[in-house]
Amino acid sequence: MPTLSVFMDVPLAQKLEGSLLETYKQDNCPKKIFLAYRVCMTNEGQPWVSSVVRKIRLQIAQDPSLNYEYMPVMGMKSFIQASLELLFGKHSRVIVENRVGGVHTVGDNGAFQIGAQFLKTWHGNSQIVYIISSQKELYGLVFQDMGFTVYEYSFWDSKQLCMNPDVLLDVVEQAPRDCIFVIGNIGNCKMTQHQWAKLMATMKSKQIFPFFDIPHQGLSTGDLEEDTKFLQYFVSGGLEFFCSQSLSKNFGIYDEGVGVLAVVAFNNQLLLGALSQLMNFALALWLNPPTMGARIITSILCNPALHEAWKQNLKGVVENIMLIKEKVKEKIRLLGTPGSWNHITDQNGTHGYLGLDSRQVEYLVKKKHIYIPKNGRINFTCITACNIDYITESINEAVLFTKGS
Amino acid sequence: MPTLSVFMDVPLAQKLEGSLLETYKQDNCPKKIFLAYRVCMTNEGQPWVSSVVRKIRLQIAQDPSLNYEYMPVMGMKSFIQASLELLFGKHSRVIVENRVGGVHTVGDNGAFQIGAQFLKTWHGNSQIVYIISSQKELYGLVFQDMGFTVYEYSFWDSKQLCMNPDVLLDVVEQAPRDCIFVIGNIGNCKMTQHQWAKLMATMKSKQIFPFFDIPHQGLSTGDLEEDTKFLQYFVSGGLEFFCSQSLSKNFGIYDEGVGVLAVVAFNNQLLLGALSQLMNFALALWLNPPTMGARIITSILCNPALHEAWKQNLKGVVENIMLIKEKVKEKIRLLGTPGSWNHITDQNGTHGYLGLDSRQVEYLVKKKHIYIPKNGRINFTCITACNIDYITESINEAVLFTKGS
Repeated sequence: MPTLSVFMDVPLAQKLEGSLLETYKQDNCPKKIFLAYRVCMTNEGQPWVSSVVRKIRLQIAQDPSLNYEYMPVMGMKSFIQASLELLFGKHSRVIVENRVGGVHTVGDNGAFQIGAQFLKTWHGNSQIVYIISSQKELYGLVFQDMGFTVYEYSFWDSKQLCMNPDVLLDVVEQAPRDCIFVIGNIGNCKMTQHQWAKLMATMKSKQIFPFFDIPHQGLSTGDLEEDTKFLQYFVSGGLEFFCSQSLSKNFGIYDEGVGVLAVVAFNNQLLLGALSQLMNFALALWLNPPTMGARIITSILCNPALHEAWKQNLKGVVENIMLIKEKVKEKIRLLGTPGSWNHITDQNGTHGYLGLDSRQVEYLVKKKHIYIPKNGRINFTCITACNIDYITESINEAVLFTKGS
Repeated sequence: MPTLSVFMDVPLAQKLEGSLLETYKQDNCPKKIFLAYRVCMTNEGQPWVSSVVRKIRLQIAQDPSLNYEYMPVMGMKSFIQASLELLFGKHSRVIVENRVGGVHTVGDNGAFQIGAQFLKTWHGNSQIVYIISSQKELYGLVFQDMGFTVYEYSFWDSKQLCMNPDVLLDVVEQAPRDCIFVIGNIGNCKMTQHQWAKLMATMKSKQIFPFFDIPHQGLSTGDLEEDTKFLQYFVSGGLEFFCSQSLSKNFGIYDEGVGVLAVVAFNNQLLLGALSQLMNFALALWLNPPTMGARIITSILCNPALHEAWKQNLKGVVENIMLIKEKVKEKIRLLGTPGSWNHITDQNGTHGYLGLDSRQVEYLVKKKHIYIPKNGRINFTCITACNIDYITESINEAVLFTKGS
């Protein structure tokens, strides 16, 4: 009898992500442009790296006193401390009251992985997850694979062309009690004091558990504190939550997943229980998180001069993003394209909605070889002096073409 | 109604490992010694680092041409290639026939994690795992948590004081069909050609799936090829298997989990299916593996002069280990301790059985503050000129004490 292969029934897995990028790569048209990179790009079309990072890399390599021993399972203590202070502020209530802690993870995927494992085990009253559409592809699968029921939501209002607080409030109101709510990009939703209060009250009364995603603090408004200010509302509102923080993208250390899963609990005792269980998941997954990225970041965050230089770096990047958006808006307007296009400059951060419908997006991809996700949310830092004219003219064409049909 | 905490029912997790280390740390006795570190220690009591690693670290930090962009999910291609060549040899059958591949993982824990997830999903005919006792604590839990039934085995013969091939053969013969067999340290089991043939035949006829653990190639015999020669038997025997390879410990990059999960399949098509599924697990766990460690290692492996220097490093370390063992044996014999103590020098590698029974181990821990795991398997590199006399005298005492009782 011939031996049967163990892998006999294993099919080739479907590609989970990057299909747009794959199609782009296979396109032979010399005009092709990809506008969906995840990271902040420089004007030269390279992934952005904070200037302090290179300096620190060299300094670390030259330091004879450093050892490269195993880290504790929890990760690098000084790194976790610095990350939490960055998220909440050194003198924030949760830090003073000793009821926020964190686990050093392999990037944001690692943070969502252990967070989801924890909720699978300890959040018995509901296994329903609401996830913001921009993060569905990356983290939706993590939850789905564990058996959670996953629903996608968005608060982008494609008619009014803005992040609409009423849409968000509606989603929360219709969500079932006790569900888990993965929240990203909420800083872009301009809510009044009254709307925040309403959001808190609804979440609290329905015992909804928020799981925040902070993929690149500082690259949204250019101000580190401003970017995570909304967390304070949830703290004051008396909610417990998880928060995934990635520090790979706002330092430009893309090849080292550097993340933290922050936990806010009602008190220190509850926090310690939760952290100890999360640690066990981390232990099974990777034993000790890799430290190179964390070491670089901690060296910068704990040195006031370097910290300041990094802050200025971020400010410069965001000013540049704003400039790109202004130019795109201006060029589209000069072409006489119907619409106000204010929504382009109204949104913060590297990524934003162009406000195009699915036919317009299809036109850009198929006819103009400009690769854009279906929802029309692009990375504005992929637009450079070399391609801005082609892109804006193509957008104008797409709008006119679909208006006429 | 007061809001109830989400973490209300979450108990403080039990510590999964390190309890011996914890007890050691809390011991105030100035004579205390810990003999169970996982890594190779220098004569100065520091974790060993290959001398080429420091050089390469600096070189990498100074290289302006390097970018730090995202790696593919599969990891760093050149690193995987170099690792596989190290495991199997550049011109080995499986490499030439294109039926071995690998996924770059976060250390050996990461390799076992995705390997176990794969087997949970695709190895439907058996969810029984036999795991070698030395790796039970680390990887047994990974399998257990996923719902596998886990059995521990050992081929250390505590009467004959050797790794006994007959014990191993017995375990395999009694194991159920189709089970998964986690194998470590098999190089220490001196098998005849006939015994190897019997092992292969039994495993093949029972469709047992081997999952090898190579935690530190080169640190067992001092010869890289010799340490993984046994893999060739399994290849020639016509078996498919997984092999976890960690490269953190044999380079001395402890704080970066650098691993590969190697897959050997009957042909390239089967291999590609398996790799694509493993990649999906890696995608959900950490998206891209961290690259600093892999970059250092690849730079060394792909440079003939550095590769050679590293090989000499390993040789030197193993010669030193042998010297320590010889001295321990000699000192114990000079004290007139009953027994031949040849088993100490008969075993390869950093770790080896002292050949003590549980009462003797207890005596050393409780009375002499020498911390040793229950099975008496210690890390010989923790023995230095400063503590060798105290250790050997204590062993003598323990043996005499228990003989008399």
